Amino acid sequence: MSKLVIVGTVAFDAIETPFGKTDKILGGAGTFIGLAASYFNINSSIVSIVGGDFPQKYLDLLSKKKIDISGIEIVKDGKTFFWSGKYHNDMNSRDTLVTELNVLANFQPAVPTSYRNAEVVMLGNLHPSVQMSVLNQMEKKPELSILDTMNFWMDCALDELKEIIGKIDVITINDEEARQLTGEYSLVVAARKIHDMGPKYVVIKKGEHGALLFHNDNVFFAPALPLEEVFDPTGAGDTFAGGFAGYLARTGDYSFENMKTAVIYGSTLASFCVEKFGTERMQDLNDKDIYKRLEEFKNLTQFEIELS
Amino acid sequence: MSKLVIVGTVAFDAIETPFGKTDKILGGAGTFIGLAASYFNINSSIVSIVGGDFPQKYLDLLSKKKIDISGIEIVKDGKTFFWSGKYHNDMNSRDTLVTELNVLANFQPAVPTSYRNAEVVMLGNLHPSVQMSVLNQMEKKPELSILDTMNFWMDCALDELKEIIGKIDVITINDEEARQLTGEYSLVVAARKIHDMGPKYVVIKKGEHGALLFHNDNVFFAPALPLEEVFDPTGAGDTFAGGFAGYLARTGDYSFENMKTAVIYGSTLASFCVEKFGTERMQDLNDKDIYKRLEEFKNLTQFEIELS
Repeated sequence: MSKLVIVGTVAFDAIETPFGKTDKILGGAGTFIGLAASYFNINSSIVSIVGGDFPQKYLDLLSKKKIDISGIEIVKDGKTFFWSGKYHNDMNSRDTLVTELNVLANFQPAVPTSYRNAEVVMLGNLHPSVQMSVLNQMEKKPELSILDTMNFWMDCALDELKEIIGKIDVITINDEEARQLTGEYSLVVAARKIHDMGPKYVVIKKGEHGALLFHNDNVFFAPALPLEEVFDPTGAGDTFAGGFAGYLARTGDYSFENMKTAVIYGSTLASFCVEKFGTERMQDLNDKDIYKRLEEFKNLTQFEIELS
Repeated sequence: MSKLVIVGTVAFDAIETPFGKTDKILGGAGTFIGLAASYFNINSSIVSIVGGDFPQKYLDLLSKKKIDISGIEIVKDGKTFFWSGKYHNDMNSRDTLVTELNVLANFQPAVPTSYRNAEVVMLGNLHPSVQMSVLNQMEKKPELSILDTMNFWMDCALDELKEIIGKIDVITINDEEARQLTGEYSLVVAARKIHDMGPKYVVIKKGEHGALLFHNDNVFFAPALPLEEVFDPTGAGDTFAGGFAGYLARTGDYSFENMKTAVIYGSTLASFCVEKFGTERMQDLNDKDIYKRLEEFKNLTQFEIELS
């Protein structure tokens, strides 16, 4: 079993969907990644920053999930990062209403000493220089480094983004961002161009349309589970990444074959995430829930065909 | 091995995509369905209508593929149905430039006597009353009837459409049309409502995002093969339906399990269709091509997971 370092926001979200709206609730990429990875019973640590307004009960929640929180800096007289968004009726697009960086503006990540030898590093969506700082703090090159990013950094920090992309093993990116990064509409061609930038594995997330895993000339596809209702998509991509990283850290097998299974685990956990607001559904899953849904994924995708 | 009756347009298409444009070329739902089904070495017959302007070489092409064309009426002094469309840069949307019904306006389908006992009937996208006429000409209820339709008939012939939907076993419909027909955004809920209208099996086509097969509480998903380039999507949905129907007619097994494989065959053939303009790619496939691509589908979707 490997150790997993996660860097990402631990934050407040306020969300409005056609099904209702929330006050400030627990959110952030680091939170979703950490919760998803916690279901693999690995040693994981979240590196992040919050303000004095961040409730102790949220930190306790992470600790209760056996996540090391010694890398979450608390700035007593600062305010926690806050994001607010409103989803459109189709749940596939959203408007950002508020983004308050607050303490995140001066975030200097510090990886806990006991995690500087971690085998797996999951760099959640943050400024590329923050992601690079985490990677640089590792005692040696991790066995597996995974990076998530978004279009915002392509617009305002492209050179630094390309530098970190050149140093990691796996990138997770959504379809539109893959197109923006490469200027290619075809995802097959886009993935090849991203390969050429460095990552041996490219995961392209297509939201409700599933995810593609590329490795050289190999490609694997996992659908999203067809759900009666998507209640709140917030954090689904981070939950996918957390499930993916958590499964790989638990197994310590970073082959393409095992990464397929990791994609299925990521999709499985993401399918829970969207069923309730924020992190609610991700707080109380059990092995039976997950097992049952993995079976649904198997039934959804597996078929018999005789190729003699 | 079962016999297959196909009803659908045999027509002229003129297509413009970002890759080029064509003059009037061979097209039509019946044509694409027939060509796709021909790869299963079954006895099939296309029921359709063309004008005196329809080239003999196109009819010869269908005959050469062992498709019975005695049900294609030739109106010597009439003109063949003509459709022209232009695809947008993303290839997912298109504008119809011209629709000339011509001989199709007075189409009275006549199923050849030797095919009135066919086990499988594929009702391609046409006016619901034409589809019903074909079904009514069968000597007895076919073992399997499959219906394809589109939003146009929901707008102008909804009652007749619902009547035929109530009589068939499988419906193939795209995602937007399923939403329009049921007023439900969730495809899971939409499929259940369509079930309630009659069909035991509901296939929802999502274009480049694959296809879903619903049967009671079971669901199966087949992705579209990720391609470097989609050259021309015209006929991909019909080719899918033709592969689906052709495989089921060859095997004579109409179970959910076997229908999964039929969906994979449909997706496989559709992945060829989009590689060239019109029917070009569908004219010269061989077993080796198809076999190789089925393997790609298997590699794309199959994974190992231990659920002990």
